[in-house]
Amino acid sequence: MKERRHAYTPPRDRGAGTFANDSFASQFTDTSPHGKRSVRAGNVNTLDHLTVKKLLQFLGQPPINFVLWDGSKVAPYIDDPVATLYFRDRASLYLTLLRPELHWGDLYSDGRVGVEGDLAGLLEAVYRGLERGTGWAWLKWLNESLGHRKIRNTFSKAADNIHHHYDIGNDFYRLWLDENAMQYTCAYYADPAMTLEQAQLAKMSHVCRKLQLKPGDRVVEAGCGWGGFALYMAKNHGARVKAYNISREQVAYAREKAGAMGLADRVEYVLDDYRNISGEFDVFVSVGMLEHVGPNHYPVLGQVIDGCLKPGGRGLIHSIGRNSPKPMNAWIERRIFPGAYPPTLREMMDIFETNRFSVLDVENLRMHYALTLEAWIQRYELHADQVEKMMDERFMRSWRLYLSGSKAAFTAGRLQLFQVLFAREEDNAIPWSRAYQYASNASLDRGDKAATGD
Amino acid sequence: MKERRHAYTPPRDRGAGTFANDSFASQFTDTSPHGKRSVRAGNVNTLDHLTVKKLLQFLGQPPINFVLWDGSKVAPYIDDPVATLYFRDRASLYLTLLRPELHWGDLYSDGRVGVEGDLAGLLEAVYRGLERGTGWAWLKWLNESLGHRKIRNTFSKAADNIHHHYDIGNDFYRLWLDENAMQYTCAYYADPAMTLEQAQLAKMSHVCRKLQLKPGDRVVEAGCGWGGFALYMAKNHGARVKAYNISREQVAYAREKAGAMGLADRVEYVLDDYRNISGEFDVFVSVGMLEHVGPNHYPVLGQVIDGCLKPGGRGLIHSIGRNSPKPMNAWIERRIFPGAYPPTLREMMDIFETNRFSVLDVENLRMHYALTLEAWIQRYELHADQVEKMMDERFMRSWRLYLSGSKAAFTAGRLQLFQVLFAREEDNAIPWSRAYQYASNASLDRGDKAATGD
Repeated sequence: MKERRHAYTPPRDRGAGTFANDSFASQFTDTSPHGKRSVRAGNVNTLDHLTVKKLLQFLGQPPINFVLWDGSKVAPYIDDPVATLYFRDRASLYLTLLRPELHWGDLYSDGRVGVEGDLAGLLEAVYRGLERGTGWAWLKWLNESLGHRKIRNTFSKAADNIHHHYDIGNDFYRLWLDENAMQYTCAYYADPAMTLEQAQLAKMSHVCRKLQLKPGDRVVEAGCGWGGFALYMAKNHGARVKAYNISREQVAYAREKAGAMGLADRVEYVLDDYRNISGEFDVFVSVGMLEHVGPNHYPVLGQVIDGCLKPGGRGLIHSIGRNSPKPMNAWIERRIFPGAYPPTLREMMDIFETNRFSVLDVENLRMHYALTLEAWIQRYELHADQVEKMMDERFMRSWRLYLSGSKAAFTAGRLQLFQVLFAREEDNAIPWSRAYQYASNASLDRGDKAATGD
Repeated sequence: MKERRHAYTPPRDRGAGTFANDSFASQFTDTSPHGKRSVRAGNVNTLDHLTVKKLLQFLGQPPINFVLWDGSKVAPYIDDPVATLYFRDRASLYLTLLRPELHWGDLYSDGRVGVEGDLAGLLEAVYRGLERGTGWAWLKWLNESLGHRKIRNTFSKAADNIHHHYDIGNDFYRLWLDENAMQYTCAYYADPAMTLEQAQLAKMSHVCRKLQLKPGDRVVEAGCGWGGFALYMAKNHGARVKAYNISREQVAYAREKAGAMGLADRVEYVLDDYRNISGEFDVFVSVGMLEHVGPNHYPVLGQVIDGCLKPGGRGLIHSIGRNSPKPMNAWIERRIFPGAYPPTLREMMDIFETNRFSVLDVENLRMHYALTLEAWIQRYELHADQVEKMMDERFMRSWRLYLSGSKAAFTAGRLQLFQVLFAREEDNAIPWSRAYQYASNASLDRGDKAATGD
């Protein structure tokens, strides 16, 4: 009966995604500044062909064409491939085999492997294929075991990690995030036809509804990004918000914006670790921080919440997650998000169980993140040249891969997005129905109401 | 900061509950057939008084008056007690101390302890008090450690357990369950003013909405009780249902009803264990069975679901649960529900994690179970004399205690009710918003639509 699930499911949006093609020609001339390592390509031999065929088998025969360094096609049996994958030299093929997650990301960033067609679609096909792939258990083992580092987010390590990712520069993120609130987390597409701006406003509205936010509520936000959500809560719900973040650039940006919007008296941005949260609050909210906390610190996070939430308070944690425990993709954890780990629901319970919190509501918004990423990718590709000028080609390619790979992971079901609403165990003021989250208030849900921004 | 939560919260519905008073007089005459054990009460001495005072301290000074066997009041400082607790003899006081959960239940059933006032309110006050109680760690340890049996629900043991509880007699359950569908699980009070019948219909409607049940769907139901929900799904949604149950009496009742309703061609009742489910289905649903499965069998249940759910299928498990792991109340597990265990969300993940299921939606309906139990208690008390005639006084009292204790546990937050909706990890046909669960369809939600029954 197991075979049923192995039937190939065409990737969603196949052919409709945003393609960032590597042209065939550019793959075979040395235009990349990172492609200058001494590599002898040589002619493709029988072993190379055999290796690619084994690789295809391992990957569950995804609808992908392979082109090797001499221009020869492998697996040309596919009429309608999602994409074509180019190996620019022999070493890139064998390095991919050795540590697929880690090496392939670097090889792609360096331009030693290239993709023509839908990059996210190719990665989705690979992710789905891996589940039905056969042979080479050692390869699977290598891929799952090697290259993952132990996550130890001490105060200083956490600060370093966050600096690595979030302090790249506000100008960079501004190129492709939503204009209003600079939300670098999953949007809420109550209607998939929404624009990114509408969906990000709808997300903030959705979270506030779940928390039943009301005027005068004291809110603590753990991990506030560029501060957009804190401003939204203050402006639209009359909340007083204390928002924590350890990214200097983000806090500076947020403070400036709060001042410009005349909300500095109601929103306080604190440049500090969530473990140092102080005060008493009606609401605890954290959107997209848990991924950076690390599972060994969940009990501490639970204690922090227990220490600051008033009786009758409500809490919501919004986080990328998994269905079963698995380290973060090794390449992403090393190159993009050091210290990151997406938890399972089971692991998240370390926050709640020992502190007598009651989980009231869990919603999985996985497909919303796929749409969010698609919107980011579209904007990113419009500005790819600009990114390359701001940084360099390697950076531009690595972020392209990271965004596409993330979209693929959410689409293929390898990543989840959990919103967990909770309250103290002894509080009985629970709404009888969740209809309040969906009461008709189209202006809010469609994001037509100006929220943050000018 | 910990003290905040220790402030006394008056029990919900205090004074509004259904009282099943033990009159003072009846406590002090030997009317119970089970009260004839040789007990020498004797005069209350200083040690007895001291013991009660320590007990009150351990219980966090609940608003309860104690009356001892010689009629003397202890803790008479409470003007407005939830209830008065009578100890009919000295042994009952000390036995309560030794194994509160287990012995107190038996003593109450035997009429050796009695309650005047709101029994559920008293138990809720005790449950809440235990959290702030001080002193006597050994007593807490005794209470939490002793009397709990290891849950091992083999096929034959499971059959015995289910027989013990569900084959008491359909006539007994008919006295106090809802008339339409004989639902012996938490109802859904979309509006707390609903009648029990409306709320049970609303529950069935709510579950079907979550599952997006449509005509022609093949449904497997694990643990179908008296079959009411299977009939509802067939009649109202055009589903074809295969419903499993190991209670002979329930299956006989369900088959007869399906025949009478002309639904025997669409609903098949199978007298068998969930582990023997066979076939392929669009929907897996289980309402109130998981409590009887035992946590060591969750992986097996997950495999059973994996083996019978078609690609694109949906599943829902509705179960009593806990915020943190704890065995079932020892008295209830021994006398009422052998083999029962309410899982935490963490423990439930054993069903989903290893079988690549994705949890889409979790709803906690704890307070709905408190209302359901209140409705059952009201009906039960109307028929208490009849129950005593059908069974005996001890049975009548033990079920009174079980229902009231359950209401208290849900009201005090010691028990939860989780509805978990899930699908296969790779399925992307997830509704964009949960608004579909709340689309205006008042006739369904209010239960005005005839569902099952004549």
